[in-house]
Amino acid sequence: MAFSLKNKDSNSKARVGSLVTKSGTVETPVFMPVCTKAVPKTLTTDNLKEMGFDMVVTNAYHLFLKPGHKAITEYGGLHSFMNWNNSILSDSGGFQVYSLSPTAKISDEGVKFKSFIDGSVNFISPELSIEIQQHLGSDIMMIFDDCPKPDSEYSRILESINRTKDWALRSKKFKKSESMLFGIVQGGIYEDLRKTSLEHMLEIEFDGYAIGGLGLGEGQSRTYEITEQICSMIPEDKPRYSMGIGKPEDIIKSVELGVDVFDCVVPTRNARNGTLYTKNGKINIKNSEFHMSDKLIDEDDANHPCSNYSLGYLRHLYTSKEMTALSLMTMNNLYFYKQLIESIKNSIKDGKFIEFKRAFLERYENETD
Amino acid sequence: MAFSLKNKDSNSKARVGSLVTKSGTVETPVFMPVCTKAVPKTLTTDNLKEMGFDMVVTNAYHLFLKPGHKAITEYGGLHSFMNWNNSILSDSGGFQVYSLSPTAKISDEGVKFKSFIDGSVNFISPELSIEIQQHLGSDIMMIFDDCPKPDSEYSRILESINRTKDWALRSKKFKKSESMLFGIVQGGIYEDLRKTSLEHMLEIEFDGYAIGGLGLGEGQSRTYEITEQICSMIPEDKPRYSMGIGKPEDIIKSVELGVDVFDCVVPTRNARNGTLYTKNGKINIKNSEFHMSDKLIDEDDANHPCSNYSLGYLRHLYTSKEMTALSLMTMNNLYFYKQLIESIKNSIKDGKFIEFKRAFLERYENETD
Repeated sequence: MAFSLKNKDSNSKARVGSLVTKSGTVETPVFMPVCTKAVPKTLTTDNLKEMGFDMVVTNAYHLFLKPGHKAITEYGGLHSFMNWNNSILSDSGGFQVYSLSPTAKISDEGVKFKSFIDGSVNFISPELSIEIQQHLGSDIMMIFDDCPKPDSEYSRILESINRTKDWALRSKKFKKSESMLFGIVQGGIYEDLRKTSLEHMLEIEFDGYAIGGLGLGEGQSRTYEITEQICSMIPEDKPRYSMGIGKPEDIIKSVELGVDVFDCVVPTRNARNGTLYTKNGKINIKNSEFHMSDKLIDEDDANHPCSNYSLGYLRHLYTSKEMTALSLMTMNNLYFYKQLIESIKNSIKDGKFIEFKRAFLERYENETD
Repeated sequence: MAFSLKNKDSNSKARVGSLVTKSGTVETPVFMPVCTKAVPKTLTTDNLKEMGFDMVVTNAYHLFLKPGHKAITEYGGLHSFMNWNNSILSDSGGFQVYSLSPTAKISDEGVKFKSFIDGSVNFISPELSIEIQQHLGSDIMMIFDDCPKPDSEYSRILESINRTKDWALRSKKFKKSESMLFGIVQGGIYEDLRKTSLEHMLEIEFDGYAIGGLGLGEGQSRTYEITEQICSMIPEDKPRYSMGIGKPEDIIKSVELGVDVFDCVVPTRNARNGTLYTKNGKINIKNSEFHMSDKLIDEDDANHPCSNYSLGYLRHLYTSKEMTALSLMTMNNLYFYKQLIESIKNSIKDGKFIEFKRAFLERYENETD
């Protein structure tokens, strides 16, 4: 299991790499569809296979609470449970225990929180998080991190990077499986703390390095500043993962700065809100211009997962509150992300990444979120 | 366009027929998945094609209100809108205008009702219902009928059969398209009125005859009594349609009495309530016996649409309120119905219908609804 670079763009930090996990080889940059509860919302893992995805992200916190990590081991592991033979990266739950449990109590030992399902009191330590992820059989595990809001006070962020260092050590020490383990850089909006946190992680040594606490209200320009700073300090031969990033333009800009791995709820959540990504920009299916339109999302792509259904039909289903609309639109958005990633990789291989970026952002430049 | 008999069971009234519509040939008995709003709930019409269905039922009332029958004609017709090249039968809306609009006012002219979508006041006459169905481009249209609850007072049912006769005449007179038109027999629980209503329909002459007002609380034994009475009076060379019937056992018993065409929300609605039809009987996915079970719904059928997902996984998705559960379970139930219909047809062709019926009901005999 290793990471190796295959192509480097000469005009940016963009690169194509090969991430070999116990389940297979993943070419990077890679976008991981979100399977928090062991399923891509509104779809099946078969749909992801058909679209060519080779890695998904799941969540230790959610699967710990339901159905339980031990139950999944007894079943035969998460790959078997969700019928997904390709790679799985699991988040440690560090982020979720706070964001989903407003009353969570954090100590150096770990986090005490109430289940968002039944209110029961639970406790996750760095060791338990790794145990959960080992039970799942994840290909890539994440250390348990202390993830406060990035614009918290300096003292709180300082505390979080020191605690994350301690938890990273304990996570690595506890790990018994052959899975890869990625460190997570915290530090909020404070440049010096980000630097220190990364130094902590590099000192401990991991199979890859993730930037945590991004996209949580710090502002887009800061996201890129932090991404650039961190990527420039991570050894070239290690994979870099921007957690929770992002919109199509965020992915392109992050790739330019050297990021390899992405996950984000944007394509799937936006689909459920009526937003479709198309090669000509974002559209909202509720817009009256699509009323009974017989146009397809992409007239030129016979392989498109919605090629049998027109925009007018999708709009009818969406405004009629038919679930089918959500499945088809989620499929479109994930397919769009997959094509985007393929185009990014091809443009890097062809030495044309910057041209690709420019052309793409031109189409998306007038978009707001 | 015509109906012809291919096989007759010598021990019952069961038969296999061939119904030729402008969109193709439909072998009967046939079960039509419900596409009220131009979609099978939680699925796509592609899913229905993959499962081998050749006819669906849709609804003039719903499509009149949204997106509107004229809009569908301008689009190119309902087949094109929902990307379904096989046959479509449309219900006239006679049943829906009452059941969905408690304040509907009925007169000899037609029915005035409030839209269940926006409360707007609308009026559907027999002529408008046919116009709507012609705009949709249905292969089989239904006359607009007066459909009170079957156990209404005798005088109300008498009024309804006379009004339905008048409306049937007006429907047939107004019809301009090449589509088939089926009459609907009313008469509630009153044997003499059912007989009179059927005589009305036979006198006017239709391409097929439907039994309306069944399964609305009259009781199961009465459903079969009425079905037997009506089927025995319809000429053998005409297709018979039991509207809204039914559960698997209802379909088998109705086929035995000579019914050819079925539609019912049971398989799809039950799926959304957690009920799965299996060859060994009905199961409820919420049942704890399926917790983390690695068994498949049908271990022996590699073509089963859920063959990649275990009962334990489906239960996890269902209890986690993931929409994917509803799609997969709907697929299972429709697949079950399709296999049931195929088995019924084969057993009739092989002269073994009664044996098939007995064996099937034995497995389902301890079931309650």
